[in-house]
Amino acid sequence: MGETEIVIEPGKQEILIKHIADASRELVFKAFTDPEIYAKWIGPVDMETELKLFEPKTGGSWKYIQRDEAGNEFGFHGVNHEVEPNERIIGTFEFEGLPEKGHVILESVKFVELEANKTEIQEQSVFLSVEDRDGMVGSNMEQGVRESYMQLDELLKSMQG
Amino acid sequence: MGETEIVIEPGKQEILIKHIADASRELVFKAFTDPEIYAKWIGPVDMETELKLFEPKTGGSWKYIQRDEAGNEFGFHGVNHEVEPNERIIGTFEFEGLPEKGHVILESVKFVELEANKTEIQEQSVFLSVEDRDGMVGSNMEQGVRESYMQLDELLKSMQG
Repeated sequence: MGETEIVIEPGKQEILIKHIADASRELVFKAFTDPEIYAKWIGPVDMETELKLFEPKTGGSWKYIQRDEAGNEFGFHGVNHEVEPNERIIGTFEFEGLPEKGHVILESVKFVELEANKTEIQEQSVFLSVEDRDGMVGSNMEQGVRESYMQLDELLKSMQG
Repeated sequence: MGETEIVIEPGKQEILIKHIADASRELVFKAFTDPEIYAKWIGPVDMETELKLFEPKTGGSWKYIQRDEAGNEFGFHGVNHEVEPNERIIGTFEFEGLPEKGHVILESVKFVELEANKTEIQEQSVFLSVEDRDGMVGSNMEQGVRESYMQLDELLKSMQG
């Protein structure tokens, strides 16, 4: 299972994430766009994800709620600018728990097949300000990302029998 | 009619634009969301804009073509993450004429009423890279922005009789 590399450069309004999955990019893309599979791996290990809306296509919208063991709920939503099968997903992302609306993130995910059954997931999050980014970093985002990809790796393994 | 302030800081992956319009923010918001009005002011003076798709609402998509006097066509499209009446429009933007797809921009437009009939339009464009931003700046974007707002000012004046 691959490492997850997270780059948070001081003063920049972006986060770069790279993760190498032991699977074809078709399978990785499926894990990002099949609602049942996606809900199983996205988010920290101690949270359950419930998809409220999931339209993994260009122009589609999505919305999900993550629930921790104490019953606290965290909502997220966005729109898909482009979903190009096996290639990339580009869209917006907003956490609904912030004090005010409008702190939107541009999210780009690219799937690059390095060799057979080895796909690099290149994720980029671009923020409206460095403050928005640092707020996200301060919310234990890194752990959530690592746990998500750990769960994704396990699922991909089980999907390949 | 107001000045248009454009801030392009070296090394940043964003462009900030401010323009003060002599109109209520309801009227300015209308100029951004009424298809007939919007097509009249968006873009440089020597181009005509044809809206192909225009859904100024949360989750909506848009697409337009701008045509110069020689008949050259330039396509643009995106999705609206949020359209909050009289408050803000946040969404994505992509120029279809680039060598490859995926160079998407996050666009945030806020309408701030400074006093009666004086509204500051606060526009922010955030890019996936400094190179993407500098490429946009090198495409005579600034002149296009200034001409757009000049045309908007004229339209807002005529709309108020």
